[in-house]
Amino acid sequence: MTANATNETSASGITLEDLPLRDELRGKSAYGAPQLTVANQLNTNENPYPPSQALVDDLVAEVARLATTLNRYPERDAVELRRDLAAYVSEQTGVEVSYEQVWAANGSNEVLQQLLQAFGGPGRTVLGFQPSYSMHPILAAGTQTQFLNCPRDENFRIDLDAALAAIAKQQPNIVFITTPNNPTGDVTPLEDIEKLIDAAPGIVIVDEAYMEFSDSPSSTTLLAKYPTKLVVSRTMSKAFDFAGGRLGYFVAHPAFVEAVMLVRLPYHLSVLSQAAARVALRHSKDTLGTVAKLAVQRDRVVSRLEELGYEVVPSESNFVFFGRFADQHEVWEEFLNRDVLIRDVGVDGFLRTTIGLPEENDAFLSAAQQLTGYITPRS
Amino acid sequence: MTANATNETSASGITLEDLPLRDELRGKSAYGAPQLTVANQLNTNENPYPPSQALVDDLVAEVARLATTLNRYPERDAVELRRDLAAYVSEQTGVEVSYEQVWAANGSNEVLQQLLQAFGGPGRTVLGFQPSYSMHPILAAGTQTQFLNCPRDENFRIDLDAALAAIAKQQPNIVFITTPNNPTGDVTPLEDIEKLIDAAPGIVIVDEAYMEFSDSPSSTTLLAKYPTKLVVSRTMSKAFDFAGGRLGYFVAHPAFVEAVMLVRLPYHLSVLSQAAARVALRHSKDTLGTVAKLAVQRDRVVSRLEELGYEVVPSESNFVFFGRFADQHEVWEEFLNRDVLIRDVGVDGFLRTTIGLPEENDAFLSAAQQLTGYITPRS
Repeated sequence: MTANATNETSASGITLEDLPLRDELRGKSAYGAPQLTVANQLNTNENPYPPSQALVDDLVAEVARLATTLNRYPERDAVELRRDLAAYVSEQTGVEVSYEQVWAANGSNEVLQQLLQAFGGPGRTVLGFQPSYSMHPILAAGTQTQFLNCPRDENFRIDLDAALAAIAKQQPNIVFITTPNNPTGDVTPLEDIEKLIDAAPGIVIVDEAYMEFSDSPSSTTLLAKYPTKLVVSRTMSKAFDFAGGRLGYFVAHPAFVEAVMLVRLPYHLSVLSQAAARVALRHSKDTLGTVAKLAVQRDRVVSRLEELGYEVVPSESNFVFFGRFADQHEVWEEFLNRDVLIRDVGVDGFLRTTIGLPEENDAFLSAAQQLTGYITPRS
Repeated sequence: MTANATNETSASGITLEDLPLRDELRGKSAYGAPQLTVANQLNTNENPYPPSQALVDDLVAEVARLATTLNRYPERDAVELRRDLAAYVSEQTGVEVSYEQVWAANGSNEVLQQLLQAFGGPGRTVLGFQPSYSMHPILAAGTQTQFLNCPRDENFRIDLDAALAAIAKQQPNIVFITTPNNPTGDVTPLEDIEKLIDAAPGIVIVDEAYMEFSDSPSSTTLLAKYPTKLVVSRTMSKAFDFAGGRLGYFVAHPAFVEAVMLVRLPYHLSVLSQAAARVALRHSKDTLGTVAKLAVQRDRVVSRLEELGYEVVPSESNFVFFGRFADQHEVWEEFLNRDVLIRDVGVDGFLRTTIGLPEENDAFLSAAQQLTGYITPRS
């Protein structure tokens, strides 16, 4: 089992360029916001409230109970977790769904990747409305699905006429609609979503990662009308206070669940992931109590930014998109110099801040007050 | 946030056939051994010994410590976990490796999928030697990589001449070598692996999922010689007693780690997965103590099967491949009728049994004794 060879490859001068990487990956860099340690972390849309002690105690007891089974593979189809998610979605959206309509994976990224593997892939296309969730085009590339962009209008809303024209012309196999949209925070009305679904020749994935922060109805209300077309994806990373647990899911007709089971990796969800998500769901009432607090903070941040002269996109999420700047990256650095880490998503003139704890929002607003000199008028 | 629509799709008669699934997935069925509840579960090569109480206590303490941070995303690149894995590999194989050479994901399936995304994909090929790990062709299909098979010889060993000819002719971008091989249990000698690497025009992935059960040297001893070609993949699911924790990894030149970071999903490893794997690594000496016990049991099972007249493939793993049967599925059912769940991997004439606890192996051997009438001579 042992040998005495020494591995000196680190000193060999070999780089990624020397490996037979796929051509389209050459020169790319890895996705991800900088993971910096800054007093005020407002860059990844996490819920700033830690889980309650009751949740922690429940989780510890559950881990103690399950740890002795870690030598065994997890329940492959995560039925009990999906049952709990179905109960949560039924209550939260008012649309009765069963576990057969719910699929879960390690974060909504994995859920979306599985959908792209099953319904996208080489020779197929996915249409999105950018700026939107930056992982959508990356997931498309990772599954060899061609990404088509129909840009949002000057107010960052989906331009419905342009969208319908793009769908008619390009006949995408998949359409992504993010609502509330990340990074802009606004909601696409259900009647617009219906028009887009009616026009779409393939499937439509409505990404509702931030829906618990919104008062607008969920697209799950449309599932009965569009059983072969509509998938609603969601996550426990945001409102649910569970970014570290990595649990995403979708709700759709059971046939969509059958479809992703053809491409999912067997035993993709660990015993601990399934158990921890179920514990978090048992405590959802407590956890979602933070949503109301964050909404109050969001409205405070928006008002103050507007008062200071910033342009702010209307937000129904836990973040705010604001500007306008000649060089937003320069302003991002000025916030960082003031111990406030926000996000430059690469949209000209705008930055995104996550709504944090009251004191974090104070720190953000204090920096924003000092930086009004960077505001430039809408051209 | 709520609505009163009722979802009646379950009753709509819609099936998977009605969805715009990719053509090559149509008619396929989901991968996976039956998850049945049977007294003697010897079908998925798990380690039958539960984690020690010391490990469980340590894990519970760690979860209690980390649970309050679950609202935050995990450390994206899992550096501390990779450092611990590197220390373990260095000690277990005698080849000094650093964390920059190690990559981890949710099971070796995800590790292999990421490698196929980066180095395989549309227009590229992967060569394997079947029968071997049944997920290899499935992962190839999932990443649109063409799978080429160079069948093993009549003793289930890699036919080196045929293998070199296949590599020369087909010029595969990736070669998979599973050693010890699953489902057959035998090891490919390092000198043969070297010849295959020398011949390969692209990369070679040596899948060492079961290597802790073998006395043969690890292919990590070849990493220094083949920095741009060789990747050694491993798992904590088998010897490590951690199938439920889902942790796979690979060891290679750091450039390979850079490569998969271009395709990995951000935050793919949860806070709990990283922490639990680190706890398991801290207790590796205890855990791997079970390997010696299982090796003794394996040798007992092999001897007895041979005594009973079965053909048995030499095994350096925690399972045994045996036959020969006119209809192996019929014999699989006869074992099941005797409360022994083993695995029919679809290889004509042979079945695979996992080495379990002594009493489970007794139950298996007792059934095997009753079923000698099914043995057919080698033709």
